[in-house]
Amino acid sequence: MTDSPTATTPDAAEPPDLEDPLLAAARQADADDELAGLRERFELPDDIVYLDGNSLGPLPKAVLPAVTDLVRRQWGQDLITSWNVHDWWGLPRRVGDQLAGLIGAAPGQVVCGDSTSVQLFQAMVAACRLRPGRSMLLTDGANFPSDQYLADSVGRLLGLQVIRLHPSELAAFLAEHGAQVAAVSFSLVDYRTGELFDAAELTRTAHACGAVMVWDLCHAIGALPVALDEVQADLAVGCSYKYLNGGPGSPAFIYIAHRHQRQVELPLTGWNGHREPFGLNSSYVPAESIEQARIGTPTLLSMVALQAALSAFDGVSIARLRAKSLALTQQVIDFADQRLARFGVEVVTPRQPGLRGSQVSLRMPEAYSVCQALIERGVIGDFRAPDLLRLGFPPMYLSFTEVHRGMQVLAEILADGSYREPRFARRAAVT
Amino acid sequence: MTDSPTATTPDAAEPPDLEDPLLAAARQADADDELAGLRERFELPDDIVYLDGNSLGPLPKAVLPAVTDLVRRQWGQDLITSWNVHDWWGLPRRVGDQLAGLIGAAPGQVVCGDSTSVQLFQAMVAACRLRPGRSMLLTDGANFPSDQYLADSVGRLLGLQVIRLHPSELAAFLAEHGAQVAAVSFSLVDYRTGELFDAAELTRTAHACGAVMVWDLCHAIGALPVALDEVQADLAVGCSYKYLNGGPGSPAFIYIAHRHQRQVELPLTGWNGHREPFGLNSSYVPAESIEQARIGTPTLLSMVALQAALSAFDGVSIARLRAKSLALTQQVIDFADQRLARFGVEVVTPRQPGLRGSQVSLRMPEAYSVCQALIERGVIGDFRAPDLLRLGFPPMYLSFTEVHRGMQVLAEILADGSYREPRFARRAAVT
Repeated sequence: MTDSPTATTPDAAEPPDLEDPLLAAARQADADDELAGLRERFELPDDIVYLDGNSLGPLPKAVLPAVTDLVRRQWGQDLITSWNVHDWWGLPRRVGDQLAGLIGAAPGQVVCGDSTSVQLFQAMVAACRLRPGRSMLLTDGANFPSDQYLADSVGRLLGLQVIRLHPSELAAFLAEHGAQVAAVSFSLVDYRTGELFDAAELTRTAHACGAVMVWDLCHAIGALPVALDEVQADLAVGCSYKYLNGGPGSPAFIYIAHRHQRQVELPLTGWNGHREPFGLNSSYVPAESIEQARIGTPTLLSMVALQAALSAFDGVSIARLRAKSLALTQQVIDFADQRLARFGVEVVTPRQPGLRGSQVSLRMPEAYSVCQALIERGVIGDFRAPDLLRLGFPPMYLSFTEVHRGMQVLAEILADGSYREPRFARRAAVT
Repeated sequence: MTDSPTATTPDAAEPPDLEDPLLAAARQADADDELAGLRERFELPDDIVYLDGNSLGPLPKAVLPAVTDLVRRQWGQDLITSWNVHDWWGLPRRVGDQLAGLIGAAPGQVVCGDSTSVQLFQAMVAACRLRPGRSMLLTDGANFPSDQYLADSVGRLLGLQVIRLHPSELAAFLAEHGAQVAAVSFSLVDYRTGELFDAAELTRTAHACGAVMVWDLCHAIGALPVALDEVQADLAVGCSYKYLNGGPGSPAFIYIAHRHQRQVELPLTGWNGHREPFGLNSSYVPAESIEQARIGTPTLLSMVALQAALSAFDGVSIARLRAKSLALTQQVIDFADQRLARFGVEVVTPRQPGLRGSQVSLRMPEAYSVCQALIERGVIGDFRAPDLLRLGFPPMYLSFTEVHRGMQVLAEILADGSYREPRFARRAAVT
């Protein structure tokens, strides 16, 4: 062995890295990582650092065989009989029960289907109808746009006033107006800042004044423990293409606690939710079970893809995922504090572990251009207007070393100013 | 050559068939069929006669390669960047424009997405809101259950009275109550009887009193000419898994006529329909185009499957499809009249060609058991409670000879009474 620069062992090829304490720590963390083997369950290109799994999770290896079987054998050969032969009919409930296991819900309270927007509409209308005579629907003014838009739409349809406030302001608001509030609709993790709210405390606060709580779990499910039954949640919704890796536009879900299932009145009364779906009656009578939350014919290809994707969670403890997720985000916060602050980068995500989801959002002056420059160099995150670089750290498939590599590229781009090149400039808004 | 019964040429193997004039006519029709080659575009098992394509169309050969590419290359390799690189974002509009071409609509009036139930809800709320101050929403009392259930739900939310009547009663009802009617929601083809209604006449009648017309095209699109623009339709919806062969639960669509696009107010205000979807604003401003009818993230796998499935229509004239469809249904009606009436079978579908869709419904005492016995013998149709055997005749891939074969099996089952065997008895209703 020589110390020639053409030597090919990793250590010899990157001698300066050995002196970087953050990289050394990352390597040690990988060596100690009991979840490292899970990456084998995914198809992930080796030449990129994918920090956008909180927007679209990567492809689990189990998906393509499942989809191919659905298309070629079930649809192609067994045709319409597959509704019975392969129990297509039962899929929304089966996948729902799988999802329930990830959010601390006993079986029979979740069905899978439709988009998060549609499910939010269902949940908010149902929640408000549980409290007739009350005049207000609350949402978070920093909530994901659809959550706010749909709250306004529900308010208009039901004649309710929609109030926007931050979860931290809930207790004070309810102390004054609690008796008027029908429902509170919050996201468990803020999609922009990554702040994690206290589901137990907020649900308790809402219940104390008789309001119904609707949780949006889009940025929580699959990344951290959610205990819907334990916190006595009422209704919840979420998507499946982020930390669940269900694929682009994979179906969402709705949770309705057992104790509400005989009272709720959902507005989207498609035939799948009828007590006797094949009776072909003229008037709607909802199923008494969670099946009432089914709407129209489920989107089988996308739902089978999700079902296969969920197998990546087989035998994986959410608590361990959470521990690794916190270690990853801590690693990024430490890196930002030590090496990015000099470029005007501010960590927006809460530093207290109990208050953050599985993402780190960095505020910086030209976040859009930086994001584009990162992508060109194979580090994929996303931009959230007006000034956030949002990076996701799904613990299932990311290594500490590659996260370090991604942060190192970010530091280089900020240092050399390459993000200022015209090709990274922000285009006109999509119209 | 001998005339031994073991001879293998088809004619020699089935000598009695040559004497059947209906079979001879079917063979001649196949020989003259200019669309016969289209069957090559589908994967259809040779050992069955598939008369349920009006419920779930068979698998077009173009689907699996398209879905595989979407999963493996686009999602798997290009990940989140596919929204731009492969223009995933534009898919609902692109597929919408493809669908528009099948229903006589100029581009820019259709988007693809969600389920028919969700789209019906959107369309009926939007229609009724176009006529504030009016108090009634009309639907067909024989309409598909979801259409009726959702009309009731919309009526409840908007404070409207829901009236059920048959399309043939519309003119008389409007003559008396026209000024109170906000919207009329009918299906173009009755899902049970196969009756085709007159879109031009009914739309004109609704408009004459200022009502807005909503058409459900589920049992029409892909099977017969629809001329939405020409009849001055207002709103329409439909599914894509019947005559369009998009696969189980493939996404539905909504049509909003250009002239209404600046006035309609859709209730499902997901972020995809916002004028600036990536602006992440707090309040909803709809896109001025048909894009306003987008809701949440589209279900990509299912939508790409549909897009590929639609390629089966490339170069195919809807007028020719319609001509063959009418010939097929006429063939079945003739067969039923000549050979099934003796078993108490009644043709429910209108005999006048202009009044029927692409299906034939046969009323018979034990329709459920007959349907099951048919399936066991490889002839797949479906049962519609309480007493209909519903057979679909999509002209794209069915031959006259195989339709004859299916009818022949039906005649045999009715003649030998085998459908009365206990294994074909109706199970308890699904709960």
